[in-house]
This record gives sequence, structure tokens and C-alpha cells, in this order.
Amino acid sequence: MNRLYHYPLSPFSRKVRLSLAEKRIEVELTQERYWEKDPDFLRRNPAGKVPVLRLGNKLMSESTAICEYLEQAYPNPPLLPRDPDAAYEARRLVGWFDDTFYHECTVKLVGERVFRKVMGTGYPDSTNVKAGSRAVRFHLDYMTGLLEKRRWLAGNEMTLADFAAAAQMSCLDYISDVDWNRSEVVKDWYAKIKSRPAFRTLLADQVPGFLPPAHYADLDF
Amino acid sequence: MNRLYHYPLSPFSRKVRLSLAEKRIEVELTQERYWEKDPDFLRRNPAGKVPVLRLGNKLMSESTAICEYLEQAYPNPPLLPRDPDAAYEARRLVGWFDDTFYHECTVKLVGERVFRKVMGTGYPDSTNVKAGSRAVRFHLDYMTGLLEKRRWLAGNEMTLADFAAAAQMSCLDYISDVDWNRSEVVKDWYAKIKSRPAFRTLLADQVPGFLPPAHYADLDF
Repeated sequence: MNRLYHYPLSPFSRKVRLSLAEKRIEVELTQERYWEKDPDFLRRNPAGKVPVLRLGNKLMSESTAICEYLEQAYPNPPLLPRDPDAAYEARRLVGWFDDTFYHECTVKLVGERVFRKVMGTGYPDSTNVKAGSRAVRFHLDYMTGLLEKRRWLAGNEMTLADFAAAAQMSCLDYISDVDWNRSEVVKDWYAKIKSRPAFRTLLADQVPGFLPPAHYADLDF
Repeated sequence: MNRLYHYPLSPFSRKVRLSLAEKRIEVELTQERYWEKDPDFLRRNPAGKVPVLRLGNKLMSESTAICEYLEQAYPNPPLLPRDPDAAYEARRLVGWFDDTFYHECTVKLVGERVFRKVMGTGYPDSTNVKAGSRAVRFHLDYMTGLLEKRRWLAGNEMTLADFAAAAQMSCLDYISDVDWNRSEVVKDWYAKIKSRPAFRTLLADQVPGFLPPAHYADLDF
């Protein structure tokens, strides 16, 4: 059986889960407290990060490399456009959310509010939390600019860029750190992506000690 | 004319410079002190990061998206294998060096020793520097394990993985933070990649106030 070693509020695990589900590849999920550096887990991925995917007899890590592989090996439905310019734009936005958004928003909010407690590394740093909240507003405005010109983030088709973005934002939404009232188009985009069957298991995730708000799993939030 | 907005010790700029040079795409280089957030630069890339590539009438950012685009639009010489498994392994290692190696080693050493001074953000944090040096040894050992079984990092052909790795390591080597005596195979690999014409402009880079060691630009180091 295929298996994904993941952590519920890991955006990179979520991005891969969305790709797998959209391509109808079934996996069993195993929660991995990756920061505890279990020797078995480090053998699977010496980088010590989630997600790690066991797909048939292959053991795979690095979420972007996994998604690119899935795209080649399971091309339907496509999550990257064929046209090089359109594919570039999708990949640019995957990089934007995996790197810039992740470090500016997710690390500073989910990292401070949830992971510090779960990992036992102290209390949230309020300077980081404030910077994270400010950055979320910047990113919502950037997304608004894109979505006013396009149906999805990278163009008129849904791509991996939408999954990369929704993966990060769903982690923030779990702790109520997205002000959906700031942008109608972003809220509409998130409602569209949230209603896909692929999103269902993400909305059922729970981290003990942190209850998601009522709107988190509500498709008509 | 094509133009690359870069910074000399930015490993992501270096990765793109190596790809461009290997594919014989000529670009003019413009140094960008990206952390100063010049409004013109932020218009080119609202994420505020280097590299940014002006290629014909296209303005491109996110180093991985740029390299994937170059691979599609300029397929010769190939820097990613055609076989999906081999391509996965190359992309996994690009992710390894761009993310894990960068945060564990480059940020903790080049970030502390060079960028703090250049950006005016204080003195190096010795805890970070020590952690960075320890991490370099771990990564050298990991690379040794790969290179004992393969001619290049991701297989028997040179790929983007080698450029991602060499881009990071050349920044560390500029400040003498790689102990080449630790691994004969890694030293041989670096000598091979350093002697490629694509590497030449990297070795001529200088950051004012930081003189590279004599061996930095020496092909027989």
C-alpha cells in the first residue's frame, strides 16, 4: 500500500496530499512527529522533513520533486499546463507560496502559535506573530491582484500553484489567521478549492490542543 | 539584451547563472542589493528576492521555476534527465540543496559572516556559525555517500542537482567554510564542476570587504 508520512499542519504535506487526491492515488496516512528525529524516519529521509511518500517500492521526499514526478507519471488530470510560459507561471507561484509565503506567514504564525507548543520550544514570539499577520495582508492583496485577472492563481485552469497556496492558507485558517473579509475574490477562490473532494481529508485533520474555528471545515464559510 | 538581477553570494542567483551559461544563453548581470527593497526592483519581483531574469520580453523570478523553464525552452544541453525516476532524483536533490542545505549551512555561515555585515544587521551569532559548521560536515558526508555510487550527485550525468549543490558550496567556499579534506570524492566532484566554462564568472565575483581565499578560484585547489 502507498503511504504518506506527514504532519497535519505541514503545508508541504498538504500540497502533496492534494495532488495525490486530485490524481486519485490512494495512500494511507502516517503522522510523523518529524522534529523528534526518529531513526527509522531519518532513514526514510535524512533531511528529516515531511512529507515522505512510499509509492509502490519507491521512497520519495521533497514536496516539489514529488509533485513533478506525479505530474509525469500520472498526467491526468494535469496540474501543470503544457505551454512553457503557463507552466513557468504555475511553478513561479508554487515557489512563491512554498518559500516566500511559508517563511513570511506560515512559520511566523503557525510556527509560533502551534509548533512551539507541540514541539515544546517555548511561547509564541509576539514580534514574529505581528510580522506574520502583516505579511498575510500583503499576500492577500497580491493574490487579489492575480485573481482579478484570472480564474485561478496561475491562469484560467487550476494548477499546482492553487494547491501550494491553499495548502499554506488552510494551515493559517486552522488557527483563524486569515481575514477572509479582506478580499472577496480570494474568499471565492478558497471556497472553490475547499469544495473539491481532494480537500476533504485536510479539513478533517486535528492537532490535539488546538481546535479549529467553526468556519474551518465549513464549505460555505 | 537579456539581464539577470543577482547578488554575488546568492546561491539561487548562482544556480540560474550556471544553467544559463551551460545552455549558452548570454545575459548581462546587474547587482541588486535586494534587501534595500528598491521600488523598481520590487516592481520586477514583489517577493523582493534575487534572481530576477529578463529574458526577451519576459520578466521571471523564482530560481526553480526559471530553471524548469530554461529546460523546456532551451533543452540542449539537458540538465534534467528524461526518465521520470532519474528526473525525480535530480529534483529531490535540487530541493535538498535549495532548502535543507541552504537553511542549515548557507544561512548560518554566509548569512552570519557576510550578509550581517553587508546588510548592517549586527555581528555574527556564534551559535548559528557553530551549528552551520556542524551541518556542513553532515552534508559533506551525505554527498560522499551519493558520490561513491554515482559520477554526479543525481546519477551518472551532470544535472541541475550538481548546479544547485555547487551554487551553495561555492558561496561557503568563498569564506573558507568547506573542509575539502573531509572527502576526496566531494573534492573531485567540485573540481570537475568548477572547471566548466559555466563556472568562470562565479569565480570572478567579489563582495567588497570580503576577500576570497587563494584556493577559491583555483581549479587545482
